[in-house]
Amino acid sequence: MDNSGDDRTPVSVIGLGMMGQALAGAFVRAGHPTTVWNRTAGKADQLVALGAREAGSVAEAVAAAPLTVVCVLDETAVGALVEPLEAVVRGRVLVNLTSGTSQGARELGERVERWGGRYLDGAIMAVPQAVGTDEAVLVYSGARDAFDRHAEELRGLGGSTYLGADHGLSSLFEAAVLSLMWNLLNGFLHGAALLGAAGVPATTFAPLARTAIGTVTGWLPDYARQVDERSYPPLDSTLDTHLAAMGNLVKESEALGVGGELPRFVQALAERAAASGRGGDGYAALVEQFREP
Amino acid sequence: MDNSGDDRTPVSVIGLGMMGQALAGAFVRAGHPTTVWNRTAGKADQLVALGAREAGSVAEAVAAAPLTVVCVLDETAVGALVEPLEAVVRGRVLVNLTSGTSQGARELGERVERWGGRYLDGAIMAVPQAVGTDEAVLVYSGARDAFDRHAEELRGLGGSTYLGADHGLSSLFEAAVLSLMWNLLNGFLHGAALLGAAGVPATTFAPLARTAIGTVTGWLPDYARQVDERSYPPLDSTLDTHLAAMGNLVKESEALGVGGELPRFVQALAERAAASGRGGDGYAALVEQFREP
Ligand SMILES: NC(=O)c1ccc[n+]([C@@H]2O[C@H](COP(=O)([O-])OP(=O)(O)OC[C@H]3O[C@@H](n4cnc5c(N)ncnc54)[C@H](OP(=O)(O)O)[C@@H]3O)[C@@H](O)[C@H]2O)c1
Ligand SMILES: NC(=O)c1ccc[n+]([C@@H]2O[C@H](COP(=O)([O-])OP(=O)(O)OC[C@H]3O[C@@H](n4cnc5c(N)ncnc54)[C@H](OP(=O)(O)O)[C@@H]3O)[C@@H](O)[C@H]2O)c1
Repeated sequence: MDNSGDDRTPVSVIGLGMMGQALAGAFVRAGHPTTVWNRTAGKADQLVALGAREAGSVAEAVAAAPLTVVCVLDETAVGALVEPLEAVVRGRVLVNLTSGTSQGARELGERVERWGGRYLDGAIMAVPQAVGTDEAVLVYSGARDAFDRHAEELRGLGGSTYLGADHGLSSLFEAAVLSLMWNLLNGFLHGAALLGAAGVPATTFAPLARTAIGTVTGWLPDYARQVDERSYPPLDSTLDTHLAAMGNLVKESEALGVGGELPRFVQALAERAAASGRGGDGYAALVEQFREP
Repeated sequence: MDNSGDDRTPVSVIGLGMMGQALAGAFVRAGHPTTVWNRTAGKADQLVALGAREAGSVAEAVAAAPLTVVCVLDETAVGALVEPLEAVVRGRVLVNLTSGTSQGARELGERVERWGGRYLDGAIMAVPQAVGTDEAVLVYSGARDAFDRHAEELRGLGGSTYLGADHGLSSLFEAAVLSLMWNLLNGFLHGAALLGAAGVPATTFAPLARTAIGTVTGWLPDYARQVDERSYPPLDSTLDTHLAAMGNLVKESEALGVGGELPRFVQALAERAAASGRGGDGYAALVEQFREP
């Protein structure tokens, strides 16, 4: 691989927070002539030392390359940043890796394409440290031609999957993955707080947590099949049995004065499912509580 | 290994629900003369066909072996079942694998030991299908001598770990693991409901979910260390950045009419942490919200 940069597509990166720095760093290391811009000064210094060029404005950065990646805090920030781009985005590809909503992605997609540009919305399902490695999973949706044209550049950021032409798809997948991630982390932290209240370190809990997570992960293909079939015969345990154990968790949490709100939430969800006649079903039946809130 | 049963310790199993049947089945397959009892008739038939003996009462079952394992719905049921055991439990070991509370385990431990028996409380961190294999993780707490004396029999149920003399420890570990498990499953099911509302099958989500779970699992050792140190510098992302993305999840869930209550709960937790000055910290800082509810 020639990393000299001479024959590599120039790219631009807008936003140099924890994630933007990782994205720009991956492009620089892959040998792309890389232009960067950040609202607050100083964040480009390390990248400039590695060979990146700092632009004086977003428009200047976008004009410097056929492909610009945006990664800032949220979609409100993106909306303001693209405002002055009508004149420069024509014929160029904008890839937005900022976390946002499907609706916001569709609106931005329309705007960019009205201006003659191509728009890909994307989501990064990885931490900055993993960007540029195969451990990073990135998903994209929107302009297929733009995805194909820049497949190699995007591949340099991590494993990349094209989800479909609807610009909203990657935000939706990201939302689903984030819901899973935050709830998993909350469960881990609540468990750690419980054990901690009894003097057991979280570092003692972590290996057991890993095993439990592995076990639960093994159930997901069957649970997913039940969700799709909307039929939930108990594969391992009934909701009624879970409910009995949820009562214990509530009591234990309250006895130790440790975040009883979370287990009560978990319990209330299962109680509603049981009240609707699903007590003899398996855990996957709870998906109906989300479908019919 | 001699599976003839001739030189194997006799064991008894009380409760033949999904889990009790699996426990008794593992003992029978390991060649232990196995006595079983269940409140409702009929559930012993398959085990009897495999060679188990059905007792006419709990006391008769306990009297038939030096080691009895109890696995019924909850600790209220256990309490009623052990009531008539004062006369028979002396010199014997009772292992309670029913899910319960630390407090309940300590009380039952006192009672059994007052009667001259030895008591081990335990928790099964596995589905019935895994019982009898190394995939099953079982934890025990209470009488160390009883654990050592019956290490081989218990090992036949799955990997077994002794947590300590406090009878309450296994319920506490179970509560922590269940909190993790239910929250993980809720996150998965909520994500599946979100994608499902847009026509994406849960079976398409499952492989991505597995990858995301693997990623998050990789963070746990560092997060656990932060929890123990009560110091939460952002390793990957700040709570403020998570909060921005949580807003998207709430919007997305509400736009699709899919279980908005769960993401609002997740968001409220993080908002409280940010309001208490932790917005620049990493996600593990949320453990303080559970510690100080
Ligand atoms: N970090 C992760 O692990 C991770 C993982 C997956 C996805 N993401 C997503 O990636 C995006 C960036 O996250 P991050 O971790 O890099 O956050 P961060 O470290 O807080 O950086 C935020 C970036 O957004 C910029 N910004 C904020 N408001 C702006 C505005 N109004 N106009 C222009 N720029 C603005 C900031 O510029 P200043 O320097 O001027 O403040 C900074 O460059 C978020 O959408 C996040 O959800 C992050
Ligand atoms: N299944 C799992 O995946 C799993 C995993 C880990 C831990 N556990 C724990 O294992 C225990 C049993 O779960 P399971 O899945 O086997 O539940 P299950 O299939 O619903 O069986 C419940 C058992 O408890 C008995 N029972 C209920 N109330 C009773 C009472 N008042 N007196 C006497 N017996 C009574 C039932 O007897 P009848 O037949 O007469 O109703 C049945 O044998 C629970 O504490 C559960 O939390 C289960």
